Amino acid sequence: MAVTQNGVKVTTTEEDRRKAIGLAARDNSGVLSPFHFSRRANGEDDVTIKILYCGVCHSDLHQVKNEWKNTIYPCVPGHEIVGLVTEVGSKVGKFKIGDKAGVGCLVGSCNSCESCNQNEENYCSKFVLTYNSVCADGAITYGGYSDKIVVDQHFVVKVPENLAMDKAAPLLCAGITVYSPMKNLQLNKPGKHLGVVGLGGLGHVAVKFGKAFGMKVTVISTSVKKREEAIDRLGADDFLVSSDPQQMQAAMGTMDGIIDTVSAKHDLVPLIALLKTKGRLVMVGVPEHPLELSVGPLLFGGKTITGSLIGGIKDTQEMIDFAGEHNITADIELISADYVNKAMERLAKADVRYRFVIDIGNTLNGA
Amino acid sequence: MAVTQNGVKVTTTEEDRRKAIGLAARDNSGVLSPFHFSRRANGEDDVTIKILYCGVCHSDLHQVKNEWKNTIYPCVPGHEIVGLVTEVGSKVGKFKIGDKAGVGCLVGSCNSCESCNQNEENYCSKFVLTYNSVCADGAITYGGYSDKIVVDQHFVVKVPENLAMDKAAPLLCAGITVYSPMKNLQLNKPGKHLGVVGLGGLGHVAVKFGKAFGMKVTVISTSVKKREEAIDRLGADDFLVSSDPQQMQAAMGTMDGIIDTVSAKHDLVPLIALLKTKGRLVMVGVPEHPLELSVGPLLFGGKTITGSLIGGIKDTQEMIDFAGEHNITADIELISADYVNKAMERLAKADVRYRFVIDIGNTLNGA
Repeated sequence: MAVTQNGVKVTTTEEDRRKAIGLAARDNSGVLSPFHFSRRANGEDDVTIKILYCGVCHSDLHQVKNEWKNTIYPCVPGHEIVGLVTEVGSKVGKFKIGDKAGVGCLVGSCNSCESCNQNEENYCSKFVLTYNSVCADGAITYGGYSDKIVVDQHFVVKVPENLAMDKAAPLLCAGITVYSPMKNLQLNKPGKHLGVVGLGGLGHVAVKFGKAFGMKVTVISTSVKKREEAIDRLGADDFLVSSDPQQMQAAMGTMDGIIDTVSAKHDLVPLIALLKTKGRLVMVGVPEHPLELSVGPLLFGGKTITGSLIGGIKDTQEMIDFAGEHNITADIELISADYVNKAMERLAKADVRYRFVIDIGNTLNGA
Repeated sequence: MAVTQNGVKVTTTEEDRRKAIGLAARDNSGVLSPFHFSRRANGEDDVTIKILYCGVCHSDLHQVKNEWKNTIYPCVPGHEIVGLVTEVGSKVGKFKIGDKAGVGCLVGSCNSCESCNQNEENYCSKFVLTYNSVCADGAITYGGYSDKIVVDQHFVVKVPENLAMDKAAPLLCAGITVYSPMKNLQLNKPGKHLGVVGLGGLGHVAVKFGKAFGMKVTVISTSVKKREEAIDRLGADDFLVSSDPQQMQAAMGTMDGIIDTVSAKHDLVPLIALLKTKGRLVMVGVPEHPLELSVGPLLFGGKTITGSLIGGIKDTQEMIDFAGEHNITADIELISADYVNKAMERLAKADVRYRFVIDIGNTLNGA
């Protein structure tokens, strides 16, 4: 039996409400296939979301293949989730049924440590990731490659009405990962010069935020082929081929900050050289092997390398509101659920402009 | 002919005033021997200082041996200079003859760039070092291993009356090098926990400043033998042997910031692990070879590595005033000028507690 509320179909039996279907990897082949499971009952602080879209983040690929040696199978990935609220707990004030809602990388934290108190749940040592985490009660979290999710309201953000929900999904991870350090390290001031290293899921959104902040934005890439898309499609002001010493030399000492999204091994010295005195290099990608750090270039110029991991929930809401005001979304390739394994193969080769998003709402049940 | 003014003997002929004797290296043997040269005439903005004491910094050793491949011979090192003012130019307001004065690593800068405008002459791309630099007029600078120096008043600081001049000399380089990042990166707040890596010329002063700021100070050293001196002699609260995984493990996540004074190759990961979330590792030494940087530990915790080079002149005055208020000086071994080559040999083996200072005033003429 189902009733309609605010235009959304709401099932009414407890069992029906908890039943979920997802796409899970069962082993380190990483192959995803349909998986039936149950979500928890919607608690008093919880919001249940009917998932419509979920972005495919590069971490999903690492995780399903157990490349970080911590995968719990079956693994339902996905932490760039957008959908509609279908149920709210008795203590939930900020959402009502039918609202557009988003969930990113986090669904829990200790709520009492210094990081949590400073709205930086992303640095809470007890945070609960949206998938592949163990909750306090021992349950394993399953992510957004699924038809529904039940999440504490604190970890759910409102998605602005004007944003296309499919294109907004990647903001929940890629977006906040670049927005948070830009905001918190003051790399969001008009007139400042921002470098963006790597033009993938994170980098292309960083360019858009940088321009919306009124900054000069220069993309630094190994691939000369990306010049046109960086400038014409994404609106970057300039483009540097990192392997061209002349171009890099000419841009030395011109940047206030650089967001480095590259996970492959790469040389930091030329990037540090691009920074002005006291400039900041922000690492948001995690190279598998250590990089070389020449300390001298940091000293002569009082420069800084900072690591930044996603962002807090307050900042995530602020980020997506800012995106709404400035009409910022990701450039995506919308795929059906049954294309996800092929998409993972293409992602491994960086063959996507710039994010795959799974059309969960229209295609998952038929996967 | 000489007259006495404020108790200081002042020579009166131009030629006598400019005549100087120093200790110079003539080649990359680094051996220092007496060297006769002339200082410039005291200009309207200049202060002439009769040098009484000069600290022996590790950079002096690198420089005289041409280890940075840029030494101009003859090379008169020394940039931890304390003495008495013997002459002032017509536009000099802040010094009078007889004043105790200090000169550190810098004697000039462009005075118009953003760094200079922000009182950070240490990051001016045109700064003039106290020795081994080429001035705008082509003259080579000679440092403090000499009986006198003529310096633009902007680069001269007042030395508090209560500080012993010999023990104050190392503050002009070692002191400001650790004080500046502590101040500018907010590692000077009561109750915060500061780590100090390496207990040499810089490290031992960092411990003293940290305690004067009201911080908890922990020394991190490879040498278990330094525990007693760190705690009993210098007043550190705790001591970690960096090669002891259990000690390091127990201290993980406890430090707000770390001042890393070590120039030898060393592992940064255990130091990053000691930092709290959003903690800062400040590098003030320059290892000859690149270090390994594992990016993951920076991300998980939003941590930062910053380079810091000496400090600006305003901060140098503030530092030495603070040292005066808190009776902070370096622990030194006072040597005569004719011991300097032996001192260099011992310095190369880190055999000094913690800084050699040359008694220029009493011993240089007889060198």
